[in-house]
Order: sequence, then structure tokens, then C-alpha cells
Amino acid sequence: MDRLLLALGLLLALPARAEEGMWTYDGFPSEAVKRAYGFAPTQAWLDSVRLGSVRLAGGCSASFVSPTGLVMTNHHCIRSCVEDLASPQKDLLAAGFFAPEAKDELRCPKVEANQLMEMTDVTARLNTATKGLTGAAFNTTLKKETAKVEAECATGPDVRCDVVTLFNGGKYHLYKYRRFQDVRLAFAPEFPMASFGGDPDNFNFPRFGFDVAFLRVWENGQPARTPHYLPWAKQGVKEGELVFVSGHPGGTERKSTVAELEFQRDVALPYTLLHLAELRGMLREFTQGSPERFRITRAPQRSVENALKALRGRHQALADPALLAQKRKAEAELRTRVMAHSKLKASTVGAWEEVSQALELYRPLLPEYRMKEAGDGFMSELFTLARHLARAAEELPKPNSERLREYTEAQLPSLRQQLLRDAPIPPELEVATLTFSLNRMRETLGADDPFVQRVLGREAPADLARALVTGTKLHNPKVRQALLEGGKAAVEASQDPMLVLARKVDAEMRVVRKRYEDMVEAVLKRNGERLAQARLAVYGTSGYPDATFTLRLNYGVVKGWEQNGRTVAPFTTFGGAWARHTGKDPFKLPDSWLAAQSKVPPETPLDMATTNDIIGGNSGSPMVNKDGHVVGLVFDGNQPSLGGRYAYVPAMNRTVSVNGVGILTGLEHVYGARRLVEELRASQVP
Amino acid sequence: MDRLLLALGLLLALPARAEEGMWTYDGFPSEAVKRAYGFAPTQAWLDSVRLGSVRLAGGCSASFVSPTGLVMTNHHCIRSCVEDLASPQKDLLAAGFFAPEAKDELRCPKVEANQLMEMTDVTARLNTATKGLTGAAFNTTLKKETAKVEAECATGPDVRCDVVTLFNGGKYHLYKYRRFQDVRLAFAPEFPMASFGGDPDNFNFPRFGFDVAFLRVWENGQPARTPHYLPWAKQGVKEGELVFVSGHPGGTERKSTVAELEFQRDVALPYTLLHLAELRGMLREFTQGSPERFRITRAPQRSVENALKALRGRHQALADPALLAQKRKAEAELRTRVMAHSKLKASTVGAWEEVSQALELYRPLLPEYRMKEAGDGFMSELFTLARHLARAAEELPKPNSERLREYTEAQLPSLRQQLLRDAPIPPELEVATLTFSLNRMRETLGADDPFVQRVLGREAPADLARALVTGTKLHNPKVRQALLEGGKAAVEASQDPMLVLARKVDAEMRVVRKRYEDMVEAVLKRNGERLAQARLAVYGTSGYPDATFTLRLNYGVVKGWEQNGRTVAPFTTFGGAWARHTGKDPFKLPDSWLAAQSKVPPETPLDMATTNDIIGGNSGSPMVNKDGHVVGLVFDGNQPSLGGRYAYVPAMNRTVSVNGVGILTGLEHVYGARRLVEELRASQVP
Repeated sequence: MDRLLLALGLLLALPARAEEGMWTYDGFPSEAVKRAYGFAPTQAWLDSVRLGSVRLAGGCSASFVSPTGLVMTNHHCIRSCVEDLASPQKDLLAAGFFAPEAKDELRCPKVEANQLMEMTDVTARLNTATKGLTGAAFNTTLKKETAKVEAECATGPDVRCDVVTLFNGGKYHLYKYRRFQDVRLAFAPEFPMASFGGDPDNFNFPRFGFDVAFLRVWENGQPARTPHYLPWAKQGVKEGELVFVSGHPGGTERKSTVAELEFQRDVALPYTLLHLAELRGMLREFTQGSPERFRITRAPQRSVENALKALRGRHQALADPALLAQKRKAEAELRTRVMAHSKLKASTVGAWEEVSQALELYRPLLPEYRMKEAGDGFMSELFTLARHLARAAEELPKPNSERLREYTEAQLPSLRQQLLRDAPIPPELEVATLTFSLNRMRETLGADDPFVQRVLGREAPADLARALVTGTKLHNPKVRQALLEGGKAAVEASQDPMLVLARKVDAEMRVVRKRYEDMVEAVLKRNGERLAQARLAVYGTSGYPDATFTLRLNYGVVKGWEQNGRTVAPFTTFGGAWARHTGKDPFKLPDSWLAAQSKVPPETPLDMATTNDIIGGNSGSPMVNKDGHVVGLVFDGNQPSLGGRYAYVPAMNRTVSVNGVGILTGLEHVYGARRLVEELRASQVP
Repeated sequence: MDRLLLALGLLLALPARAEEGMWTYDGFPSEAVKRAYGFAPTQAWLDSVRLGSVRLAGGCSASFVSPTGLVMTNHHCIRSCVEDLASPQKDLLAAGFFAPEAKDELRCPKVEANQLMEMTDVTARLNTATKGLTGAAFNTTLKKETAKVEAECATGPDVRCDVVTLFNGGKYHLYKYRRFQDVRLAFAPEFPMASFGGDPDNFNFPRFGFDVAFLRVWENGQPARTPHYLPWAKQGVKEGELVFVSGHPGGTERKSTVAELEFQRDVALPYTLLHLAELRGMLREFTQGSPERFRITRAPQRSVENALKALRGRHQALADPALLAQKRKAEAELRTRVMAHSKLKASTVGAWEEVSQALELYRPLLPEYRMKEAGDGFMSELFTLARHLARAAEELPKPNSERLREYTEAQLPSLRQQLLRDAPIPPELEVATLTFSLNRMRETLGADDPFVQRVLGREAPADLARALVTGTKLHNPKVRQALLEGGKAAVEASQDPMLVLARKVDAEMRVVRKRYEDMVEAVLKRNGERLAQARLAVYGTSGYPDATFTLRLNYGVVKGWEQNGRTVAPFTTFGGAWARHTGKDPFKLPDSWLAAQSKVPPETPLDMATTNDIIGGNSGSPMVNKDGHVVGLVFDGNQPSLGGRYAYVPAMNRTVSVNGVGILTGLEHVYGARRLVEELRASQVP
């Protein structure tokens, strides 16, 4: 019986359909692909595609597409860079950008590119450190040991080391990246073309966006040498063709307990959705009638709208009783199997119950945690900078392993970059978002809450926000540098109002953070680990781990789908974009595209749908064919793919990409970006 | 065994605590009150308080407080009247209003007052008509017969007859009201005082609002004679004292099935909450920097904020696993009992299943229904008027029983009043809300949806909204009157762009309405009736029916509560209001209140908390003591009372009222409203 169960377990651990799975490179199921498609990636193929893959530190994917540092990603992944480089006089976001020569490429102050060089299993080391610990002790020790592991690995500023969680804590791996911090913009289309269709078309298909951008990594004042890159395919893909996506899916919760999913559905997602919806309403109205406000707001507005739609899709997936019924069944099955083994039974005793109890504690704590510590009450870049300065002054003198995670040695290069970058911070938008968030905080925690009273005093949120934003000097990077280098003495001596506020509220923020981390996060993590280990014991590692913004490879085919009795074809064309043009935002094609109508055959493919299993974070991922050659650029998923956070639905879940042929055509005939076209053509392998 | 179950059933049907229950006047549990408090209302007491109670047709409660037509209600119940009477030159909402003499009282164009004269049980007649019918046939017949019953009863324009649903369709009663359509404003405080504490304090306590207004009903150019009125109490109430609330709770779902509650939690409430949150963000920003926009928006904004907070409270109640666990238990118990009786078993066969199936059909239909038919896609008063004109032209020529419900004879007086009233419709706000809703519709249904394309064509929502609002002549009541009287020929000949749009989309709106009504509403109603009848068979009518905006009486005591270890006292004072004043909206007292500091002892009671079981619709309800004399004016509930939609929680659920002593004090010493004070004092019984 036992054997039968285990055999069944292994069978069930295979994905329901071939396309499901976000596989780590060291766990890719080549054999299964071979069985289904007659092609198996070799180790050399895997190494080559892995080293051609790039992570953008802010949360996107990308790829090297030439030996001289050329990087392909989505426009929406580097939108804030274009925004930073723009000005009221030179609206790069609206106009687009192309550097005719390498020397014209413009540095993106916030962008950092990472290339995954090595993966090492450090599970045993971390488990030894936390053995027998629970609650705060477990959390503190795990953090200390993680910081230690990362610090030992990070041997210089061009190395980034992250301990990553796999299988929900069943495994910990150390990921070592080569970091490129001099990243420059080579090409960006007009924003209205990158996001053609705007919010209405977002997460929909048929789609007609040209969400493409090219960057270049530089080293020592020269384009960097990048011998590992993905060549451009000679031929476009066909319907039904096998394709691979290599990228960094940000996060899935496919192995979460039912209690955690219900908590998302009933508490966490509704909270966040309402916050975002109101923010969106505010931002849209804020931009009305002022071209300058429109300019400074369109990028963050687009981000908010994207998040809102994505989370709404997630909520809808969880609100579908069929999904939770399936999860309940899987959980019951796991519990039954665990109970049948005395060792597993002992190792998981109370685990599900502790998860539920932690969530019950989190329920009343969540609004407080989000408002005070997690930023919802202080939506201001200037405040964020002020808090970093205040906290860095407290944290940096401590031993590395005792610091808050954001201030450990491994994180310092990113933190310094964030604090010292010279990018504009539009004050009017700062006042608007800070006012919004202070109002939300007062409503959420109540006007009589002591923390709210400490922040607001007898001020109205709008007045306080304006006083803080106009009074602070922190928009000046030199001022921030002096405070960062001056350490605790400089920070304590400063009378800057934003910094004074950050110092005043920091102690209370830390209290709620600690409460959250010890009572909720640590309990969920420790029990998540116990359950993950039990799951590994029952089902083995033949499955794939939940996404954690680590590099993954998956496979699928070019394919449309059926929805409400309507067939959605897998390709859209340039001709379709021209037909969709109404002349009104967000369906207004830029002049460049209208002018190209005479030069490009209308049947030229533009965007396409495939069955690859992706999620947020995969934006910018290269799509390659069997030869490992670029055939597309992932930039979205369809609406059903949003529920992919919890489960992959083969019949509906689709990845949305810009077609590789469409990219070359656009670069050449719409933008005349000959230098890049030649660079990409030169990379093509005959 | 059977007997034991039934005995248990009767026991369980008694409310968990004495204060729970929204009782109809013909089912009031006088004996239970006597047992608990040593006082039982007599039939004369009940008749007198019932006839002193008033319903405001828009969705509020009120009371007669003098023999010459003086009506007390909340400021927030007549806010839109004050708004209608205001102008940029004369900002009545901000300044407040007091008519020194009766002749100075100002007509409220939208307000209608109803007094409940008779209640008749018509269950048998309706049940006979619908016997054996299901789906569309059931729905159509029920509507026809309802329209017939109402038409027979409505003998003139001063009579209003509504067939009301009680016990979720277990009972139907015909309610006959005397209607007063000439309603005039006598007193309103400043809006900032009526809503002192604004959104942060809304649904919170301690509270310091003076949410009070006085109207007067007129007849034939004279104050109406209202011999049935509630005299003002000589003494204020004390902590622990027994009090009664007589009013019109709008709706509860305490008897809903678990499937219906889960649908609310997972689908309906999230949909509405997100719509409202985004609208709120838009409206708040819309008012920034423009006093005129602030003026025209503050009232609808406040309504949106109130709805948002109320629905959020409901959602939080449903997201509490304890509440649903209790509902599941009750449902399981009912099912068990029903199954034990062959007759009940037969009469309910498939009922729960059909409810679940209807909700599964509703799930994908809801956004379409809400956007197209229920108004979320067309948030514009001008569009609403246009659609009424277009539909009235179609419906009025039909026999009464075949019309859409809003156009039946019984509804015509209200409809005519709505169509012909002369109240301003601010065009700038119309453009903003119509733009907002057209955008939301396009996002929700998709840019490729044929209905969306028919509405928008190749226009952007903002451009279309502006063209419609500036192009229409429907803001002129004379134009509307001509169209209403001109009937179908006039409507079809009109080139008014708003009316053209309404005609163009009406057929598709009707399709989705019919789908909703036949496939969802009718199924829920019919099975709700079957279950309600089974519940009555098991538990009897000793319980109270769910609220349906019908007159109810309940009892409670003046009492605070404990929250997070903090004791909330039942009274607040004038002194507390002065202490809460920060000088910044929404905590800015008007000058009148600051000036009164020298005249009013600070310990004078202002607002109070009681254990009465109320819900939205009870706003404006009189609170009376054992003598049936006015001691307060209900205007809100605390946060836990929002979950009262689904269950009354005795330890936490509180009604919030303005104290009777505080009302007289405010009228006399803050506003110098001597005429009203004398009228109220004259009504006091020695």
C-alpha cells in the first residue's frame, strides 16, 4: 500500500500538462520535453541559454543579444529610466529614443543587470543553524546565517550574492551573479506604442503593443564584452512550434496551504486592491488638464494600473470555487500521506494549525503593518530616502548579521545606488501621493490612533505633505550623500523635516515590523519549510519549485485559445495595429507607425500567444526556439494567466510576446535603427 | 425526537440577546421586552409611534415631531436637497440654513415623505398567482400580480402602495402610505458640523457630529396637520436606560444561504468596492484647488465615501471565518430538520442547489449586468434622465402589468417627480463621472466588446462624455417635460445626443437585464421563498424578517462597549467636540460652534451609543423612551454594526445617535433657532 501510494505520488507530481512548470536550470525535465516534442536541451544548450539570460534588479528579465553587451528587455521594464532621463523640455518617454552611435547611449541611473554565474545548495548549512528553533529565534538566526553566507560570497562590487528560497524553504540555494551597474539606454519606442491599448488591452489578447527596449551594459567606459549571448533566429516561429522562455518569474503560491490562499482572497488582496484602486482614481484625475502632470505621472500611473489589474485577476482566480476545491483536495491528499508515515507525521505535527494561527494573528495586524512599516501610509520617494538614511545610521554600526535585512553588506551596493542616484523627484506628485497615503493611514488606523496623532499632530494630511515636500532638501543627492557618509551624528543633527519625521516614527515602525516578522512571517516560514520537506519526502523533487524571482526555464508552443466560444488566434499583425488606431489615447499610434504603413506588409507578425507558464517578473524574458535563438520577447500574459499565481490552466493560460520578426521589422522600417538591426543580424548564426 | 427538535427550534429562533431584532410593528415581541425590562409597549403605544414615524422615499427614516408637520431627520438624508437649493453665490451646504418663519422654508425638489397607514398580508394572493411556476414565468407573473395589487391600492397621488417582501419571500405584505410631496427645509446645520470628523470618524465612536435637520410637510400651501407625532422628552436618557428605534432598515441578509454570502464576499462586494474606491480617489482629486468643484462634489463624494466604508465593513464581516462558520452551522441544522419531514423535504428539493447554480450563472454575468443595465457604465444624471425618457416612451403605452417595474402606475408619481424636478445638474461633475464610468466599462468588458464599441465608436471616453454633456438639452426640465408628454413620437424625433445614446443602447441593456432577472433573480427569489417557507415551518414566525426598507421597531439600552481592551463610554459632549477641533477639515468646527463655548456647559451630551439593532436606512430614525417621547436621533452605527447586515453581535454592535438634549441645546444656543425650539417644547407632554 505504502509503495503504491509513493508510486502514485510520483505520478501525480508530474505536471498535469506538458507546458506547466517554472523549472530551475538544474532541474529541467529534458526527458519529458523529449518525449513530448522529440527534442531535449543538452547541458551545453542549458548553460548557453542561462548565461544569455539577464535579470534586471528592479524585478524584470532580459537577455544578452550581442557579444558587445546589447541587452533586450521590455519598454515597461526600463520606463522609469526613460522617465529619469526626460525633462519638460525633452519628453523622451513620449518621443522614444534611439542612440545613433554607442557613445550616444544614455546611462540609466537606477538600472542594474545581473547574470547568473553559479548556483550552490546551502540548505544543509542553514538547516543546521536553525535546528530546533521557532518564532523570533528561528527568524533571527535564519537571517543572520543568510547574511553571513551572502557576505562570504560577495567578494566585490561586481558580484551579487543572494540566498534564494526554493520549494517554499525545502531548499535554499546561493545564487551568485555578475553585476553590471553601468547600464545605458540604446533604444526605446514611444510610450504610446510600447503600451498601445493601455490599460484596456493590458493582460488581454489580441494585442498590438511594441513593448521593446534595448540597453547596453558598459564596463570601464566601453561596451562590455558578453561572449554568452542569444543569437537572433533566422526564421520566425510558426503556430504549434516549440519555444522556451528563460526568465525570472517573481512569485507563485502554487504550494501554499489552503489557509494561506483563503487569507489572500479574504484579507490581503482586498486590502491591497482597495488601496490601489483609490490611488488609481486619484492619479488619473491628477493628470487631467496639465501636460506636465501627465508627463510626470503616466509611468507610475501605468504601474499602478498594471498592479491593480494583475491583483484583480489573482483575486478572481481565488474567488473561483473550483480552484480552491482542487487545492483542498491536494492538501487533504498530502495530509493523508503524511499521516501514514510516522516520521513525516512527527515532523509536521501542528504545522497546518500553526499556519492558520499565524494568519489569525496577522488578520488584525495587516493594516497596521502595511500602513506603518510597509509603506502604504508614506507613499513618497523622499520619505523612503529619509527612512533609509535614518535606518542606515542606526544599522550600519551594528555587526552585519544583526542588521535589518536591507542594510546587510550584501544589500549595500543597491542601497547606495538607490540613495545616491541623480534622478528627478517631481515635488507635485510627491505631495499628491503623500497626501493620499496619509489620508488612507488616518482612515485605516483611525484619527485617535497614537501613531497617527504623532505623525499628523493637528495638521491636515495635505498641509503636512506639502510642508514636508517643500521643506526637505533630500531631493538633492549631494545632501543625501553627506548624510549617508556623516552617519548617525549627521542624521541626528539634521533638521530636515522629512528626516525628522522618519526618525520620529522609526521606533514604532520597528515594533510593528518585529511583531509581524516574529509572530507571522517566521511562523509561516518555519511551517512552510516543514510542509515543504514533507512534500519533498512524499513527492520527490521531480516537480518544480514555486517562483521566487530566480532564473527559470520553461517550454510551450505557439497557440491561441478558445474563450466564450470565440477562437483567439495566436498571432497579431502590423495591419491589425493600423486597424486598431482610433487616434485617441490609448489607441493612438505614433506618427512613426502611421508613416510605416507604406513600407511594411500588413501581414507582418507583431505580437503572439504561446502556452509558456510565466508570471510577473518574466517581463523582458527572451523566447528562444530549439536552437536557442531568439524568436520573441515576453511582455505579458493573458487574463487567465494571472491566476497562474496559484495554478496553471492549460486550456487558457497564455504568454504574450512581441514576435521576433516584428521586432526586427519595427527597428528597421519604423525606427530606422540600422545600427541595432545590423548588430542583431551580425549575431545571427547561419 | 421530532418534538424535541421542534421545541429546540423554537428556542433557537429566539434572538441570542434581547437587543437583536428588527421587528415589524405587527410582530413586536412585547412580552419579551416586558420580561427583560419590566415594560411592554401597548397596542396604542405601538400605533402612536408607528404613525409618528416617517419614511423618506430616497432611503432614509424620519419622524413627525410636532402637530404642524415638523419632521426630524439627519442632515445627511437631505444633503442633496440643500445642495439643490445652493448656488455658487449662496452656499447653503457650507453655511447651513434656518427659516426664521414658516414662509421662509424652502421646497426640497427631490424629497418625498411617507407615513405608513396600513399593512395587509397578500401572501396567499401572490402565491396562488405563481403556483407551480419557475424561472422567467415565475418572475413575470410575480411582477404582474405585484403591479396589479399595487395599482388597485394606489387610489390617488397622495397614496403610495408597495408590495413588500418579508421573511425572504415567506410573506408578502401590501404597505399603504400617505405621501407628502411638498416637503420643505426648515433647518440644516453647516455641512462641516453635520459631518464633523468626516470620513475618518464615520462609523466610529466616540463621535461628535450634529447630523440633524428639520423639514416640514406642507399641504395646499399650508403646513400640513400631523396629529400623530412624537413629543419631545422632558428628560434626557441615562446610561442603561431602555430606548426604542422606529425606522426603515434598508436591507439585511441574515437569512441568506451560505452560497449567497460567499458570493457576496468573493464576487459582488469586491466588484462594487473596487468601483467605489476608484471613484472616490477620482472625486477627491477632482475637488482639489477649485472651490466651485469642491462645492458641487462634496455631497456625492461623502455618499461615495460612506458607501465604500459601509461595504468594506460588510466585506470584513464576511471575511471573518467565525461568522461563516456560524452560518454554515445554522444552514446545516435547517437542512437536517427539513430532511426529517417528508413534506418539507419535498417542498425544498433542489432549493439550495438551484441557488448555487444561479450564482454560478451570475458570476460571469455580474460585471456585464452592472455596467450595462445597473448604471456603473453610465454614471451621469443626464444619462439616467435620458434613459428614463426613452424607456417611458416604450413602456407607458403597454398594459400596466407588462411594464418594467419602474414604469408601473404605482411608481409613476416618483418617476415624474424625478424627471421634472428643477434641480441643478453641474456639467463639470457630469463629465467627470461619465468619463470615469465609460472608462471603467471599457476596461471591464474589454475594448473589443460590441456593446462598448457601439457606445464609444472611435471616441475616447473623455471626449464622448464632454460631447454628450455639453450637447444635451436635458438639464432643462421643460425639455424633459416636453419629451415625457410627447411620448414615443417626441422621443424618436429627438436628436438630443444623450437621448440618442440612450435609445441606441436600450435594447442590449434590456437583454442583459432579462437574462439577469430570469436566470438569477427569479431563481434566487423562488428558492429563497421555498427555503423561507420551510424555515417558517420549522421555526415559526417568532423571529423577525430580514430588513427590506419597511418600518421596524427595535429596543436596546444606552451602553458603551469594550474594544481592544479599551472602554468606549456611551456619551460624548459638547466639550469633547471643542477639544477635537484642530481647525483643519474634517476636524474644523464652524464659527457658530466655537462662539457657543461661552454659552453651553461642556458636559452637555452631544452623541451617544446604544445597543439597538439598526442598519443603513435607519438614518434619521427617532429614538424614543418608554413613554414614546423623543430622546435622540439615529444617524450611524459603529464599525462592528456594519457586519449587522449578516449578524448582530451583542457585545460590539452599537447604534450612534445625536442626543435629544444635545439637539435642543444646539438649536437654541448654537443656532438661535428659537421658532423650532418653541415648537418642540410646546409638543412636550407635561
